[in-house]
Amino acid sequence: MGKKVTFNPYGLTIEVAEGENLLRAALQAGVHINASCGGEGVCGKCKILLESGEVDTFRGSLLTDEEWDLGYRQACQTRVVGDVVVRIPPESLLDRRTLTRRRGGVGLRPSPINIAALKEQGLYNPAFKKRCVRLSPPTLADNVNDLARLEDGLARQHGVESLTLDFYLLRKMARVMREQDFQVTATLDFSRRRFRSPHMINVEAGDTTQRHFALAVDIGTTTVWVQLLDLAKGEILGHAADYNAQMSYGDDVITRIVFSQKEGGLHKLQRSVVGTINQVMHRLLKQHKLAVEEISHMTVAANTTMTHLFYGIDPKYIRLSPYTPTAGSVPLLRARDLGLEVPQHVFVYSVSSVSSYVGGDIVAGVLASGLYKEPRLTLFIDIGTNGEIVIGNQQWLACAACSAGPAFEGGGIRFGMRATQGAIEEVSINPDTCEPMIITIGMTKPKGICGSGLINLLAVLMEEGIILPNGKFRDDLITCAPRIRRTENGNEYVIAYAEDTEIGQDITLSEVDIDNLMRAKGAMFAGYVTLLESVGLRLQDLEQVILAGAFGSFVNIDNAIAIGLLPDLPRDRYQFVGNASLLGATLVAFSREMLSEERRVADMMTNFELSETPGYMNQYIAALFLPHTQAEYFPSISERLRAAK
Amino acid sequence: MGKKVTFNPYGLTIEVAEGENLLRAALQAGVHINASCGGEGVCGKCKILLESGEVDTFRGSLLTDEEWDLGYRQACQTRVVGDVVVRIPPESLLDRRTLTRRRGGVGLRPSPINIAALKEQGLYNPAFKKRCVRLSPPTLADNVNDLARLEDGLARQHGVESLTLDFYLLRKMARVMREQDFQVTATLDFSRRRFRSPHMINVEAGDTTQRHFALAVDIGTTTVWVQLLDLAKGEILGHAADYNAQMSYGDDVITRIVFSQKEGGLHKLQRSVVGTINQVMHRLLKQHKLAVEEISHMTVAANTTMTHLFYGIDPKYIRLSPYTPTAGSVPLLRARDLGLEVPQHVFVYSVSSVSSYVGGDIVAGVLASGLYKEPRLTLFIDIGTNGEIVIGNQQWLACAACSAGPAFEGGGIRFGMRATQGAIEEVSINPDTCEPMIITIGMTKPKGICGSGLINLLAVLMEEGIILPNGKFRDDLITCAPRIRRTENGNEYVIAYAEDTEIGQDITLSEVDIDNLMRAKGAMFAGYVTLLESVGLRLQDLEQVILAGAFGSFVNIDNAIAIGLLPDLPRDRYQFVGNASLLGATLVAFSREMLSEERRVADMMTNFELSETPGYMNQYIAALFLPHTQAEYFPSISERLRAAK
Repeated sequence: MGKKVTFNPYGLTIEVAEGENLLRAALQAGVHINASCGGEGVCGKCKILLESGEVDTFRGSLLTDEEWDLGYRQACQTRVVGDVVVRIPPESLLDRRTLTRRRGGVGLRPSPINIAALKEQGLYNPAFKKRCVRLSPPTLADNVNDLARLEDGLARQHGVESLTLDFYLLRKMARVMREQDFQVTATLDFSRRRFRSPHMINVEAGDTTQRHFALAVDIGTTTVWVQLLDLAKGEILGHAADYNAQMSYGDDVITRIVFSQKEGGLHKLQRSVVGTINQVMHRLLKQHKLAVEEISHMTVAANTTMTHLFYGIDPKYIRLSPYTPTAGSVPLLRARDLGLEVPQHVFVYSVSSVSSYVGGDIVAGVLASGLYKEPRLTLFIDIGTNGEIVIGNQQWLACAACSAGPAFEGGGIRFGMRATQGAIEEVSINPDTCEPMIITIGMTKPKGICGSGLINLLAVLMEEGIILPNGKFRDDLITCAPRIRRTENGNEYVIAYAEDTEIGQDITLSEVDIDNLMRAKGAMFAGYVTLLESVGLRLQDLEQVILAGAFGSFVNIDNAIAIGLLPDLPRDRYQFVGNASLLGATLVAFSREMLSEERRVADMMTNFELSETPGYMNQYIAALFLPHTQAEYFPSISERLRAAK
Repeated sequence: MGKKVTFNPYGLTIEVAEGENLLRAALQAGVHINASCGGEGVCGKCKILLESGEVDTFRGSLLTDEEWDLGYRQACQTRVVGDVVVRIPPESLLDRRTLTRRRGGVGLRPSPINIAALKEQGLYNPAFKKRCVRLSPPTLADNVNDLARLEDGLARQHGVESLTLDFYLLRKMARVMREQDFQVTATLDFSRRRFRSPHMINVEAGDTTQRHFALAVDIGTTTVWVQLLDLAKGEILGHAADYNAQMSYGDDVITRIVFSQKEGGLHKLQRSVVGTINQVMHRLLKQHKLAVEEISHMTVAANTTMTHLFYGIDPKYIRLSPYTPTAGSVPLLRARDLGLEVPQHVFVYSVSSVSSYVGGDIVAGVLASGLYKEPRLTLFIDIGTNGEIVIGNQQWLACAACSAGPAFEGGGIRFGMRATQGAIEEVSINPDTCEPMIITIGMTKPKGICGSGLINLLAVLMEEGIILPNGKFRDDLITCAPRIRRTENGNEYVIAYAEDTEIGQDITLSEVDIDNLMRAKGAMFAGYVTLLESVGLRLQDLEQVILAGAFGSFVNIDNAIAIGLLPDLPRDRYQFVGNASLLGATLVAFSREMLSEERRVADMMTNFELSETPGYMNQYIAALFLPHTQAEYFPSISERLRAAK
């Protein structure tokens, strides 16, 4: 049930969920409260006065008895229990104009694609099916071999014909068939051949049709996700994740490829990612009290380098111009042959890739988002360690990788970090004093700033006029605002002073950092425009934008548009699909149609090497500005900036 | 150049090859010479008088100076150099009537099926083909993945479309393609799919189309044969063989199956036969100076039990009624997964079996002999550790295993032995004295008697009237012929006295042995008649008889007919194909048509469980007679026996 929170002296009321933290509520309302420690409660700067209503609060040592009695509370230590009225103390008070902008309030719609939708569309039809048959036991008058008996039963009882099968079944077939008096369940893979000609991958004694499970795996450069699927019920039972153990050999695909060229390097990388999958899978199965023997198959989506490394295929030429991977589609392979700790009957299916830098994760995303059958012109964006984009609709698809680098995962930024505990993710700045209000993930003392935090910080610095469109700090502020200071390597903004941080040093954002962020967002934006131009279209023609990945789930759309990272379109054209790669791998396991479509979809995606595409460099240079040198690309932002002035 | 040998006092002249042994020449001429030591020269009984002509002889210590000077020579130590005239001394002289019968003179025709014939028929067309392509190296404007580039090259340059491929190729593809500047040779398997859709199993740098090899393997219960094939030239380069190392776990399929049920037994059996194949293969490759990496694939033919054991499939139910094997056709399997020491790209193809006791060796034999496309009604017989028969033509095929047991390999016969050094194989008996003339394999002192020797001995005992049609010794001979003697277990014939043998004991054939041989031949004969009757045909309708296996190569047809083991048909209807199983495996490797036919042929073969077939038991009992209770089945033998009387 919602609770009303009124912020005075602004008289602004918003509704929040019961239990919401008051600092978050303020941020949501666009109300600035100084807060330096990310929400841990140790800086004591986020004091507010509780005028009325019920809260649940923790009194640390930072409030004097007098303050406590007067009704002062630390916003970050206070949760809303009933409707409350609070007053922002003068030191946090802002110029009113800040209130004209609501932050984080963009109602980014989740993509409508999910299992329920799949079922509604009649696409829920796993390629793997279990079929139970009762066979008459052999007699001297009818002593055909066990396999022929089973084939005959499947043909007569289920219309299954021209079966092929996996060799290893034969090693247990005689025993399994006799275990429950010739009642057996066959697991059939309908993906390899046309209808009515499946490949048999398993036989089990008795009727096991109600127990049928599969795994979908997303192998990210950073994180490995495993999802457990119930193919009998058509449900996602759960998922688990962990860091890709390859992380110890390098942060990004390039350093991994470099490592793979060392003696034994490829083998080490292959073993470590498989080790991660095994460990996550076993944990997941344990949670759901499932034996690994009940798993029928595994679908995997990953970027091209991760796919090569997972399969132990040398990725050498992915890194070297002209950037050729070994293969787009990898043939079926017995999972055990890769070291996966699954039964012998489990084969690995992986989603096809398009090129060296547009991989199976993106193809899975295109499958998951339904882009390949979408009538509307759509832009699909996945920003992670690199940025990949796809533009098109059911008729055509064009794709490219933008050399955005890992800035939006915190890479190449001095105090950048991954979106984990202690990362600054929400920022507001008092334009008068330049004092910040920050919230960290987990509301602990800050350790650094994550990707969405960087976007938010850059946007607020820009919108408050603290930095100029060229990314440099306003000269006049350096003398008056202590948080803006000059260093040998240019100017910087101090987000948190050493004493308020976990790391014991000032957390800053420098002009060098800002430059890196602008290059990254410029590369992305130039990508959209170039791809669209290559097919004679403009940004305004985009009817839909789909954001994939963790980025899509956490980004503040308004801020991302404000800095020129995303195109300035009506916000309702945006939606996000979360981990589209994992969802794609899951859909492929749930839908034979999608499994048989995946290679066609990959083939449909025309890859553009942006560095080779005319006009890209000009677009890139034009995009190195906040939000862009051509204001007409960003009408709503230009309008707002003008209004603010 | 032939040399004439005249035997006096008979005045009989035959022509033999220069260098022929005189004892063999006598046997060939139907001239009896006493000979007890198998031809080793130690008994001294085969003395003949050289009347004229040139011989090459060895004088042992058994001839006195007087004898030597008179011209006596040991026949077994003498080889014909020029035309010679020899006189048989009185102690070896026979009643003339013996001469009316020529032994071993049946001109058994070899089957016309061989590689040359295959080529003439346009069937020489290996399913595995190498195709060399020159590709243009990738550029930024054309940086499709390596596999797509290769597929495109194969499509454009060789019309190969819709390729599938083996996963493991991808692990070396990038390197191989760049090794000789994008000139590569692909090995394509056209057996798995329809025309124009092959499966790629290997890629090699440069043009290797002229070097393309394969292996054909026949896994016998006793012996493993490996044949080396040149697929580029269409030639059999050579073969090698060794005893199946499983022999240490039992002589026949039943004892092997029993052993396989012990803890770890199946694994041991699997490993031992694979060890034998590896060892024979490496020896063969070394002889031909070929690296194992140049082998593209392997085809295997074996009986059903050997097939199960080779693949590590539990053969338990082959032995237990109702005798169901696990499968008739085994799917393709990577050879390395069985422990075969071949490259990763080698897959094993095995010839399909029909039933538990009519295996892939018989199907391979039917393929090799061309029976499945033969217009004439044909009987195919393979007598080995067991006896299998196939009857039919291009329209239909019926088959059965006869529980003949291993008698014709020497099994179950007290002094029976395999056809190796020291085995008595040729026998003649002086009907007046019952003294034998024996020749052993290798002409060494006898150790025992092999299958063809047993047939020959039984035939001669019967034809000379020493045993009666019921298999018992003629009572009156026991008192007058010292070689025929009564024992606790019935009567027996002493083929060789202890002092003339290698084993230091009398080598005998007892009535118990004879009974076993009669049961074995009776089972076979009842099989022919029953299978024919089941389709409304008679023995006389047979237009052709094909004998397979070592048995077919060494058997004396006349004698085998005389004892009732083979039907009494005009001798020119008989032909032999040698190791039909190995030839079948080779043909399958050489001919895509035959490879794609093999399963159809196996399916075409209707299996009869003789024990379940009406009339079989009566036929069997009727056949327990020499040659048969119904003389009309053996007109030529009855005629001869009548004439002899």
